[in-house]
Amino acid sequence: MSAVALSRLEKDLLGTLEVPMDAYYGIQTLRAVNNFRLSGVPLSHYPKLVIALAMVKQAAADANRELGQLSAARHAAISEACARLIKGQHHDQFVVDMIQGGAGTSTNMNANEVIANIGLEIMGHAKGEYAHLHPNNDVNMAQSTNDAYPTAIRLGLLLGHDTLLASLKSLIEALAVKGEEFAHVLKMGRTQLQDAVPMTLGSEFRAFANTLNEDHDKLTRFAPELLCEVNLGGTAIGTGINSDPRYQNIAVQRLAQISGQPLIPAADLIEATSDMGAFVLFSGMLKRLAVKLSKICNDLRLLSSGPRTGINEINLPARQPGSSIMPGKVNPVIPEAVNQVAFEVIGNDLALTLAAEGGQLQLNVMEPLIAYKIFDSIRLLQRAMDMLREHCIVGITANEAHCRALMENSIGLITALNPYIGYENSTRIAKTALESGRGVLELVREEQLLDEATLSDILRPENMIAPRLMPLSA
Amino acid sequence: MSAVALSRLEKDLLGTLEVPMDAYYGIQTLRAVNNFRLSGVPLSHYPKLVIALAMVKQAAADANRELGQLSAARHAAISEACARLIKGQHHDQFVVDMIQGGAGTSTNMNANEVIANIGLEIMGHAKGEYAHLHPNNDVNMAQSTNDAYPTAIRLGLLLGHDTLLASLKSLIEALAVKGEEFAHVLKMGRTQLQDAVPMTLGSEFRAFANTLNEDHDKLTRFAPELLCEVNLGGTAIGTGINSDPRYQNIAVQRLAQISGQPLIPAADLIEATSDMGAFVLFSGMLKRLAVKLSKICNDLRLLSSGPRTGINEINLPARQPGSSIMPGKVNPVIPEAVNQVAFEVIGNDLALTLAAEGGQLQLNVMEPLIAYKIFDSIRLLQRAMDMLREHCIVGITANEAHCRALMENSIGLITALNPYIGYENSTRIAKTALESGRGVLELVREEQLLDEATLSDILRPENMIAPRLMPLSA
Amino acid sequence: MSAVALSRLEKDLLGTLEVPMDAYYGIQTLRAVNNFRLSGVPLSHYPKLVIALAMVKQAAADANRELGQLSAARHAAISEACARLIKGQHHDQFVVDMIQGGAGTSTNMNANEVIANIGLEIMGHAKGEYAHLHPNNDVNMAQSTNDAYPTAIRLGLLLGHDTLLASLKSLIEALAVKGEEFAHVLKMGRTQLQDAVPMTLGSEFRAFANTLNEDHDKLTRFAPELLCEVNLGGTAIGTGINSDPRYQNIAVQRLAQISGQPLIPAADLIEATSDMGAFVLFSGMLKRLAVKLSKICNDLRLLSSGPRTGINEINLPARQPGSSIMPGKVNPVIPEAVNQVAFEVIGNDLALTLAAEGGQLQLNVMEPLIAYKIFDSIRLLQRAMDMLREHCIVGITANEAHCRALMENSIGLITALNPYIGYENSTRIAKTALESGRGVLELVREEQLLDEATLSDILRPENMIAPRLMPLSA
Amino acid sequence: MSAVALSRLEKDLLGTLEVPMDAYYGIQTLRAVNNFRLSGVPLSHYPKLVIALAMVKQAAADANRELGQLSAARHAAISEACARLIKGQHHDQFVVDMIQGGAGTSTNMNANEVIANIGLEIMGHAKGEYAHLHPNNDVNMAQSTNDAYPTAIRLGLLLGHDTLLASLKSLIEALAVKGEEFAHVLKMGRTQLQDAVPMTLGSEFRAFANTLNEDHDKLTRFAPELLCEVNLGGTAIGTGINSDPRYQNIAVQRLAQISGQPLIPAADLIEATSDMGAFVLFSGMLKRLAVKLSKICNDLRLLSSGPRTGINEINLPARQPGSSIMPGKVNPVIPEAVNQVAFEVIGNDLALTLAAEGGQLQLNVMEPLIAYKIFDSIRLLQRAMDMLREHCIVGITANEAHCRALMENSIGLITALNPYIGYENSTRIAKTALESGRGVLELVREEQLLDEATLSDILRPENMIAPRLMPLSA
Repeated sequence: MSAVALSRLEKDLLGTLEVPMDAYYGIQTLRAVNNFRLSGVPLSHYPKLVIALAMVKQAAADANRELGQLSAARHAAISEACARLIKGQHHDQFVVDMIQGGAGTSTNMNANEVIANIGLEIMGHAKGEYAHLHPNNDVNMAQSTNDAYPTAIRLGLLLGHDTLLASLKSLIEALAVKGEEFAHVLKMGRTQLQDAVPMTLGSEFRAFANTLNEDHDKLTRFAPELLCEVNLGGTAIGTGINSDPRYQNIAVQRLAQISGQPLIPAADLIEATSDMGAFVLFSGMLKRLAVKLSKICNDLRLLSSGPRTGINEINLPARQPGSSIMPGKVNPVIPEAVNQVAFEVIGNDLALTLAAEGGQLQLNVMEPLIAYKIFDSIRLLQRAMDMLREHCIVGITANEAHCRALMENSIGLITALNPYIGYENSTRIAKTALESGRGVLELVREEQLLDEATLSDILRPENMIAPRLMPLSA
Repeated sequence: MSAVALSRLEKDLLGTLEVPMDAYYGIQTLRAVNNFRLSGVPLSHYPKLVIALAMVKQAAADANRELGQLSAARHAAISEACARLIKGQHHDQFVVDMIQGGAGTSTNMNANEVIANIGLEIMGHAKGEYAHLHPNNDVNMAQSTNDAYPTAIRLGLLLGHDTLLASLKSLIEALAVKGEEFAHVLKMGRTQLQDAVPMTLGSEFRAFANTLNEDHDKLTRFAPELLCEVNLGGTAIGTGINSDPRYQNIAVQRLAQISGQPLIPAADLIEATSDMGAFVLFSGMLKRLAVKLSKICNDLRLLSSGPRTGINEINLPARQPGSSIMPGKVNPVIPEAVNQVAFEVIGNDLALTLAAEGGQLQLNVMEPLIAYKIFDSIRLLQRAMDMLREHCIVGITANEAHCRALMENSIGLITALNPYIGYENSTRIAKTALESGRGVLELVREEQLLDEATLSDILRPENMIAPRLMPLSA
Repeated sequence: MSAVALSRLEKDLLGTLEVPMDAYYGIQTLRAVNNFRLSGVPLSHYPKLVIALAMVKQAAADANRELGQLSAARHAAISEACARLIKGQHHDQFVVDMIQGGAGTSTNMNANEVIANIGLEIMGHAKGEYAHLHPNNDVNMAQSTNDAYPTAIRLGLLLGHDTLLASLKSLIEALAVKGEEFAHVLKMGRTQLQDAVPMTLGSEFRAFANTLNEDHDKLTRFAPELLCEVNLGGTAIGTGINSDPRYQNIAVQRLAQISGQPLIPAADLIEATSDMGAFVLFSGMLKRLAVKLSKICNDLRLLSSGPRTGINEINLPARQPGSSIMPGKVNPVIPEAVNQVAFEVIGNDLALTLAAEGGQLQLNVMEPLIAYKIFDSIRLLQRAMDMLREHCIVGITANEAHCRALMENSIGLITALNPYIGYENSTRIAKTALESGRGVLELVREEQLLDEATLSDILRPENMIAPRLMPLSA
Repeated sequence: MSAVALSRLEKDLLGTLEVPMDAYYGIQTLRAVNNFRLSGVPLSHYPKLVIALAMVKQAAADANRELGQLSAARHAAISEACARLIKGQHHDQFVVDMIQGGAGTSTNMNANEVIANIGLEIMGHAKGEYAHLHPNNDVNMAQSTNDAYPTAIRLGLLLGHDTLLASLKSLIEALAVKGEEFAHVLKMGRTQLQDAVPMTLGSEFRAFANTLNEDHDKLTRFAPELLCEVNLGGTAIGTGINSDPRYQNIAVQRLAQISGQPLIPAADLIEATSDMGAFVLFSGMLKRLAVKLSKICNDLRLLSSGPRTGINEINLPARQPGSSIMPGKVNPVIPEAVNQVAFEVIGNDLALTLAAEGGQLQLNVMEPLIAYKIFDSIRLLQRAMDMLREHCIVGITANEAHCRALMENSIGLITALNPYIGYENSTRIAKTALESGRGVLELVREEQLLDEATLSDILRPENMIAPRLMPLSA
């Protein structure tokens, strides 16, 4: 075997290049690989994106076949190649860096070339014999990167959406379970880190579940709405140039069937080609989720602080020794990691925002970064939520006696007496309690401001954690 | 008259302070003014917020009256005071800085004190005679800052929402009018700042209108959904402590009636008290609008660049001399200012995000910054959109002949020949044209790749800016 | 007196406009006011900027006079007008919005027009009689907004720098005083909110002082280095067109003399005209200061949390009643406000960064926003630091006994025994202590792992808060 | 061979775990790997960080040996193990995710365990026989993650700094070469995208070089100053607990020798342990560099826009076919990719800022994210700068004739006549030229405002791109 067999020569606008013989990608992909050695994260890192690209190519081929533009043989070869990609084969051939110039052309050509070469082998030809099946003329027929690429990104996000929602839902359920489990644990609520009024630990965890549930609701309803309108059929800049008038509808319908997603054709293709609004808002929703997760983890770290010199109302499960020097130290490492993921997601949202703002005229050339950051945020959030649930939430226990002791010792109980003895009396007693270190109940009793029966009724915990009939004012 | 008459002495938990005699606010407001000399922007800067505070106080007073907690006389005094504030009177009494510690307590107390003192005068008492009408015991009855303040912010945003939408709609319409006006102006589309394929200037402006219309749609539908759930009735930390079990529903219903907004009671008051998610997402939607406005203004500046050494396809109306040294220079000052507003809004979104993440346990103490930044973004966007429409969009004119000349000279025309002469032929001709400076049509004719009739049919502009029947492939 | 006397007619490239008779500004300023109704913050809000503008105009006039380009009479009039502005007079005439299109032309023309009209009155002419003293031909002679404006911004920042440094220094000193005051207060250190090892409260406050002192050092040394290179003399785009070859050096030297700042001419005027790097890095330094202030305030809020259900190691001075419903509640309102200022400064830094990135070719047209945000950050930080020192730091007291009790009860003491009984033994005892609720010393004694004399020597607080001779390992 | 041989059992505070037999890392590393499946980026991704960790361990071991705490045999084993890591061996054993909870403990323990196990093999023991060489007691002796980890990060950044500077310097030189090459190319300068005054293309590229050179200067001088102060010796929270009083100085001196970096001991170890200021400011400097690179790339894309319908003053080297549909299209893919890298770096800076702000009390638990983001920004910037230089800058060519033609046709030439014919005359002529499409010189000649000799002298290009003697004013 001669050395020549290790590579094949391919040719494009700029000249020729040796492509490794076993590569399904071609010269344009190779140029992109050589040009962009940046993040080190290849397209294959996000399988849903690769699958979405294959689905787009399949839908376009179907439409072209139906319109008589693509021969049955070529259509069959493309279809089989796409099917393999959708099944998860050959993803290692998607080698271009997620950060790339060219507005996604390299991604689109990577798909076109891989599909063409797989198809060529299926047809019994050698890789690179593009006369029989051409990356541009056949696989990319009636498409432009301008439409195929944004369509694939949207579809890729939709394909992964259920998994994100499932991780979120599992986390919500785990929090809700704790809400039930801790429903009877009375504790002091805190505002501004200062003692406020009593509540239950259960209501605190239920609030975590409920606040995330709002995001589950919004993500479930809004994300598809944002993403389902695709610009396939727009070809270059959205004019639809070089496509048949019937093509857009056929192609989008086919894509909806293939993917099982509720895709619809964009109403204004010129607008849809350059518009990044859907990604900005979707990322904004992910940012909101990150902010909430970070807040919850901040709370978990506060509530478990101690064990002896902090709040210590709850215990997080120990996950690893906490210190290389301090024996016995166990740290809230899981929430800490979630905080950092949240910060990264917020940073991703900013990078994406800058990229969206940087679009010019008929295209947003920064779309590869937008795709990268949004896929990255989703993956990070999903992993962080799974980690949080599995390694932390489900194992949380309450220090019930300590919770109650803190509450009973708190000055905040005075609030419940407010409607009975007035704001000024209450304020005075609170102040005395604080200065003397004594309990507020003791002081109220001493001053005989309320009879014992009333007092103990008011201060029954179940009466303090919800509205109740108030005494009529004078 | 003695000097003493210039002030009155008021008292709170921390001691006494002299309050100016003519001030309707009281000692707690004064403390806040002395504490927080920061942004210099007082509450009164946002009238909708003041009005919303008054509506909240009115609704609470109505509910308290209905439940027999508030006497008819006090209710009447509070009602008249609130009515005056809603009418726009006494707003200058809302003097606390928008940036404040205390999670909005100073804002809430500013409202409580102003209403109490106006009410006292209505009742025939002197300001400060709180035995007759008390800021805390009466005006703030069954409320906490924890519920009254977030409710007022949400309501304030809802009250101003129509005005924001109206400015956006007017801008969209102005852009759509230009879309119509320029519908016949053929020009070259550009991707990545490089010549792409033909389009019309009308479709470019229509795309501006359509992309903003999506934001109008989202803001119209999502913002009320985000903001209409209020936590009034939660009192301290959402337990509803010191409120009657019937209070929440009565108060929220009254508030909905008074304001005409579709307010509903929060389902989980503990959650609703600390949750800032609605603001994060609303601000995210404003950020998206800012990004789009900035992109449009970048395009307007590019398209009007020149007049001699730029693109010069359109003319922006001259608004002011452009240079202190270069005579005759006229600059795109209006879009430039919009860009800067957009950057400020993006910065506001970040500050708000940090504030949302910084909440702890049962309250978000950074809510004053959140309120400030979101009201600020809305005001800036509204003003920027009005400015853009009035001082720029409506006066834009097209350089039609120049647009056509650029297009006819462009190599991008070759794309339309792609389906007829193939990608390789097209690429070769494009390359020759670029190197020789010659026109692509001239070269196609020279090579006799297509007969003249076909060629001129393909290149009829109306045939290039939309899909058309393609020749069947071999 | 006829109505006509209320205004005068002025003329520019775009036509005529009625300017209020008593206004020192002229038609171009008026156009800008009408164009830009955005932030509502006029130039006069930042007096140092107005003064810097006047100094630039004075220096240019001096250079033009020296080069024989400006008559003695005109020079005298300009000089007197500038002197008045430098003294703080007529600042109310700087009416243009800080957010403006035109890359600062409106700011520069506002200065040119005000100086011309003040000068005209000094010369005995009426305002608007520009034949005798012209805003462009005379006041702006040998300048462009491109050089006069960035020079004024840099100078304005330098003029205010000492005040910023003074506020920072005072805060550092107040923290250092507390470091001394609390030097003897033993307490538990915490990492990851978990009990770590003993330290003193004094070292905690000294660390606050020291960390800010690094910013004082960096701001003192780096800021002047960043800002002192000015592009005055560059005129349009930095070519120096329409200026005398000797002009740059004379003008910058004069400006250095007038201002007392170590200004030097930019080496590459083309570069200096569009470069915003100095502002980006200066703002980055302000952001760093904001981050540190926020971290310190987070710590103050944590350490003062409670009083009964938190850490409660220190007491912040009460500044205002903390709640409209919870009597006796006192909140850490001052640190809370500082946190919010810090978030705003971080948001400002982002807006400024976007503006810096948005510059194109020979100019950064977003410079007005850059100036606005950096002046705003400085003002906010200065006010926040003064507030923090005066209303919080100086009044902080320690709960010494509570600090010691927490420490003595902590499991973290075991760390000090590590070198004596080994990491495994220590870990085991820590675990037992945690599970049983017993003290670590008690357990060590029980197991007789160390004799009493060694144990009490190791655990003497002064031996735990610093390095000490270690026992030699086996 | 039994199956047991595939793993060994290790034990820690939380129990036992099976570690793969061939792994040099141990149980704590394994726990961290199981806990943190987040970014997917392992420590080994940043070799300088691994090398820095090994150097820290070596320096500590040397100090411990010198102080008699560590036996010669153990010291020798540790030394050889560290030497291997410094040589680049075994980096694949650093398997923990860059995003991790625990404030770096997992990173530190990964280093401790790998070094211990390599050392054990060197000593002739099996991996895991920690009685002979213990990860905590020996390798981590006199250290805490609190000091070893931040020290390693700083050192890692210093170790990579020269490479970053070299890439930056090469880029600067490439731009400067173009500055020379294009020194004679006259062109029109543009402000606000509008025609301004003439300049040379050389001065434009020289400005690119000079503006980056300022960053080279700042990074060269400031970064070491920021990073060279290390907190090694602080052990837990900076008290130096469990270290010998002489230890800090010996260890830091040794580390400086080993690394060749100018490291000095931190003056306030409590402060140094939690302070992230150096990273915030260093990242701020990287952000500034990113902003400048982005601005330069924006300019390159503008200047090369066209070829027929844009500015087209320069040609970027073609790197790959530009379109899957538009034949002959070549896009500025390299600058586009740099823009995206810049946006990512700005996003990284934000994530890092949030992490810095999130530190609490005696430690910043978010330091792993800080390390990750700053190493990532450096790597991205370095690669982007190399790419920009190699694939773009060095191949840029000028369209000299087109540059000159644009200039000669421009209205901006009128500025040079300003000092001779006055601002009003110039303005009038500019306006006429614009409206009529005629040239300004033609109009000046027609009006005989200047004699031909004067006119042609003024308008000699070399006279327009620099200051010149001005005519004396009347």
